[in-house]
Amino acid sequence: MSLIIVGSLALDTIETPSGSVSEVPGGSTSYCAIAASYFTHPNIVGVVGNDFPESVITLFKDHHINLEGLTIETGKTFRWGGRYAENFDDRTTLFTELNVFETFNPVLPDTYKKADYVLLANIHPKLQHHVLDQLEADSFVVLDTMNLWIDTARDDLLALINRVDMLVVNDEEAQMLTQERNYMRAARKLLASGPEWLVIKKGQHGALLFHENQVFHVPALILDEVKDPTGAGDTFVGALIGYLDQSKDHSFDNMKLAVVFGSVLASFCVEDFSVDGITYLEESDLETRYDEFVIMSQF
Amino acid sequence: MSLIIVGSLALDTIETPSGSVSEVPGGSTSYCAIAASYFTHPNIVGVVGNDFPESVITLFKDHHINLEGLTIETGKTFRWGGRYAENFDDRTTLFTELNVFETFNPVLPDTYKKADYVLLANIHPKLQHHVLDQLEADSFVVLDTMNLWIDTARDDLLALINRVDMLVVNDEEAQMLTQERNYMRAARKLLASGPEWLVIKKGQHGALLFHENQVFHVPALILDEVKDPTGAGDTFVGALIGYLDQSKDHSFDNMKLAVVFGSVLASFCVEDFSVDGITYLEESDLETRYDEFVIMSQF
Repeated sequence: MSLIIVGSLALDTIETPSGSVSEVPGGSTSYCAIAASYFTHPNIVGVVGNDFPESVITLFKDHHINLEGLTIETGKTFRWGGRYAENFDDRTTLFTELNVFETFNPVLPDTYKKADYVLLANIHPKLQHHVLDQLEADSFVVLDTMNLWIDTARDDLLALINRVDMLVVNDEEAQMLTQERNYMRAARKLLASGPEWLVIKKGQHGALLFHENQVFHVPALILDEVKDPTGAGDTFVGALIGYLDQSKDHSFDNMKLAVVFGSVLASFCVEDFSVDGITYLEESDLETRYDEFVIMSQF
Repeated sequence: MSLIIVGSLALDTIETPSGSVSEVPGGSTSYCAIAASYFTHPNIVGVVGNDFPESVITLFKDHHINLEGLTIETGKTFRWGGRYAENFDDRTTLFTELNVFETFNPVLPDTYKKADYVLLANIHPKLQHHVLDQLEADSFVVLDTMNLWIDTARDDLLALINRVDMLVVNDEEAQMLTQERNYMRAARKLLASGPEWLVIKKGQHGALLFHENQVFHVPALILDEVKDPTGAGDTFVGALIGYLDQSKDHSFDNMKLAVVFGSVLASFCVEDFSVDGITYLEESDLETRYDEFVIMSQF
């Protein structure tokens, strides 16, 4: 067992300035696992209702995603609806129907407990603690979270940050956690609170990787058209940890490549709705896009 | 004659969350010329009152800035006052006293008219046109501007954009000029309107260079403390064109280096008030800072 991913699986209804879609595959795990699948065979833990489309299960299997930790419960799958403003940055949640996800209790199959890499995708910090409690190896743990938990489960989250190897937040979350607007000072505080590695995602402005006194910046690709930003952050972190599981190399130089490939996959993600931008990519697609990042940022 | 810079010279009074200063050297030309001086000997055109401090004239001379085009008029120097909000992004103008700058009519000394490079730093587009009308060579012209002229002198500005080789704007100005929020579509429209080269400055998120179908992104350095963002954009473009004048190489690869050195100087600029961050730097300071950009962005 190498990489396990624990998060949400959902059916999303999304409106953006570029169009709208209804009841499409979503949730942090869907994006993370598909993105990671280009580098390794991820193993997921999650719950869906018996209305979850068989076609999405097939899609996961096509991407060599191990579903041993997936529970299919009688009832409806978690549903989320959101609308993006004209600038694609401001997002309004239209509805959240937790359904079977409301009682989600992530239980790791025995074969998952010695994972080399664990991605705690965005779910309640108490559940993320519960996942870590089940591990039987010194796994490299990456934690993703969201503003909701900083507001409503701050103590659980802070304790969790102290248990992980890498924290991934966006710039708003970094500021909420540290009361610092300055990236460097925010990063210092967050690294001092536990994790050895920190990523601050800046949306269309790229992402920053911090480790000890080192900083790396990866830009976001400049695209002609963004259709749907949903899941771009999940895709980024999924590809990042997938790349780490493939390479098993925690040098700063290799971590740089991990965040570059995170940005490569995220750039595909936003070009289409739901997970459509990141499914069935060829190795040559990734290479071509990687080359665009080289031209764009190397001097 | 190789590089001429035409813009404003002022005495600034600035309040930022890090402190405040009164009647310090400012104006686009001061920043542009000092930044350019690390790569070439810039020649400036401008006007000041007879209250302009002799110490600043000495500072310019120390930086090998040719002052043949500087007019010292009887009267007071242009004064500007501004206050930055807690986030360092939002700026309020507290006062603007044009004084001798109100009737500024840039006249190029004969020795300036065959310049290889011309930087039209931020002044009224009509004056910028007037500078171009006096040139007697096929100079490489870089145009900097501001939101005020997009609002109040749009036609003059659009005609000017069609006369220059490189346009430098910030992201808000790019959007005002094109009604496009998407960087790539905004860049296409601006490149189609005349200039071969375009730079979009993104403040703390760095800058983008566009040419034909190529894009390059340079990050801003992640600093512990920003003291004063005034003049960072001027410093960026001054170093950029200074580097070009030194290298005389318009390949995309060399233009990349020009914007990297623009960011290097801008990173020094914001670390102190007024021009204090960019005066009397050693070559080794620039090299060390350049190396930080390499570590930060090269993979």
